Amino acid sequence: MAVYTDVSNEDLESFLKAYNLGDILSFKGIAEGVENTNYFLHTSAGFYILTLYEKRVDARDLPFFLKLLDHLSEQGLTCPQPLHTQSGEALQQLNGRPAALFTFLDGVSIRRPSAQHCGEAGRVLGELHLKGLTFPLKVENKLSSQHWREIFKPVKHQADQVSADLSTRIDQELDYLASSWPHNLPQGIIHADYFTDNVFFTGPRLSGVIDFYFACHDALAYDLAIALNAWCFEADGSFNITKGRAMMEAYHKARPLGLQEIEALPVLCRGAALRFLLTRLTDWLNVPEGALVRPKDPLEYDKKLSFHRHVKHASDYGWSGKFL
Amino acid sequence: MAVYTDVSNEDLESFLKAYNLGDILSFKGIAEGVENTNYFLHTSAGFYILTLYEKRVDARDLPFFLKLLDHLSEQGLTCPQPLHTQSGEALQQLNGRPAALFTFLDGVSIRRPSAQHCGEAGRVLGELHLKGLTFPLKVENKLSSQHWREIFKPVKHQADQVSADLSTRIDQELDYLASSWPHNLPQGIIHADYFTDNVFFTGPRLSGVIDFYFACHDALAYDLAIALNAWCFEADGSFNITKGRAMMEAYHKARPLGLQEIEALPVLCRGAALRFLLTRLTDWLNVPEGALVRPKDPLEYDKKLSFHRHVKHASDYGWSGKFL
Repeated sequence: MAVYTDVSNEDLESFLKAYNLGDILSFKGIAEGVENTNYFLHTSAGFYILTLYEKRVDARDLPFFLKLLDHLSEQGLTCPQPLHTQSGEALQQLNGRPAALFTFLDGVSIRRPSAQHCGEAGRVLGELHLKGLTFPLKVENKLSSQHWREIFKPVKHQADQVSADLSTRIDQELDYLASSWPHNLPQGIIHADYFTDNVFFTGPRLSGVIDFYFACHDALAYDLAIALNAWCFEADGSFNITKGRAMMEAYHKARPLGLQEIEALPVLCRGAALRFLLTRLTDWLNVPEGALVRPKDPLEYDKKLSFHRHVKHASDYGWSGKFL
Repeated sequence: MAVYTDVSNEDLESFLKAYNLGDILSFKGIAEGVENTNYFLHTSAGFYILTLYEKRVDARDLPFFLKLLDHLSEQGLTCPQPLHTQSGEALQQLNGRPAALFTFLDGVSIRRPSAQHCGEAGRVLGELHLKGLTFPLKVENKLSSQHWREIFKPVKHQADQVSADLSTRIDQELDYLASSWPHNLPQGIIHADYFTDNVFFTGPRLSGVIDFYFACHDALAYDLAIALNAWCFEADGSFNITKGRAMMEAYHKARPLGLQEIEALPVLCRGAALRFLLTRLTDWLNVPEGALVRPKDPLEYDKKLSFHRHVKHASDYGWSGKFL
């Protein structure tokens, strides 16, 4: 949530020569995206977002992300569509950084989504998964279940500073998930960061999905588990079963879930909660000097995890079974 | 250049109820304004800027600034026009802070202005001064010549850490200006911060002036002196007489300068340079822990000041005399 790289009007003008976007009408750094620098750009041809990729994104993965956005846009998903230069490139250089231009998406993110918002989010996640099935490129999930133990290792000795016995709880969860994680679920492109900040609405209607920089190949139902964690808990830590039902039903209408996926949901939700607990814990314990971004509370996901530990079946999330 | 106050979609929705702006289509924090938090807002009724006033602006002065913008907009100056609620208020509260909505101005600021840009800037500054003459409210200039000595006092003992003998140079300048400052020049509303960041262009044409939060009552030609300092020096510290001429000629066409004002320009330019040297020096020596904004180099204005010390007449800035 900060502008890291300053771009002058003069730099922008020479960057835009490769495109065909008319005159610059407005250009403002925006506080969106934690990993990148983003600018709002208005030209006589339309509205755009200019993204400069900062160090945290691996530049080697950028062609994958840009091609995925090309693909999903072509399939009709409303996501940022990369603009191509007159010679066909989506990725350019600006101020020494990889940079790309995207179509501007209307909409605002909803911090406290209603059941209706959760339904919309589920529907579009299902559509995203279907549209991703025909995408030919693959990148592995660098934060998948097989990586969780190694992510925990460097912060394990400090975990109990954050909450009593957190280290033991995480170790037990790692053991449980290592023995219970399902490996035969349908795979495909997952968003992997489908949080409310990355989904835009205009009124009650979902208007776009952004920030695909964690997208990768993994179990599709795991992405739904991430979304249930992100969208369906209340601020007091309780799970809202009405929201869960709305999200799962709408997802299922767009992309029918199989019996194996339904049965796996409780363990997938535990895994999703642990994944965010681990990365938030790492960020929490490694705040750089003079950081612009405040780390998110890891214990939010510790609480969610303890809820999931008591879940026996997808019906505890609101699954009604009538769609099977 | 940062978003200080976070506004959720829900907070925004209840804030906007007092206006009549239709549905929210987009809402993004923007990196504009050092003193305030600014958001870009797009609704079905149009494009707007939402400003939340942070601590550095005195809330008691806000009605003055908002009424000035009302006045200047009514007079046809392209500046942010405050929106009024259905009950007529321009100033509201949002997240515990004073907040106002403004029309959105197209345009980008030009970091390295051409002589043509300087001419446009001069023309619009002259128009601004004329349009301000009928504004009935007054606030004093808190950074006027009579305050410079007291601004210097708390940082004087550290000035030589920034540059050798800076303290002596500033003392000598304070003495010179105390005895030479003109007190009978035409007065009116001045912008007082007419830097390139606060002036927008679309192509070669000036499209708007922003950031009136230093506006006050003072000598009009002093505002031109601030602008000559801000716009007409090159990056290497040299004064560009072509730019100076373009700015003064265009200003003079919009608002004819009197003989007294022309004669006072060298001393006004010295004063303007000292004023920014002093406030930048103060900021430079008082960077708060964890600051988001890097202070500007005070020595840029030390160099400008030493140029002005050798100026004998406005013709050294490019004044041709033919307009008198």
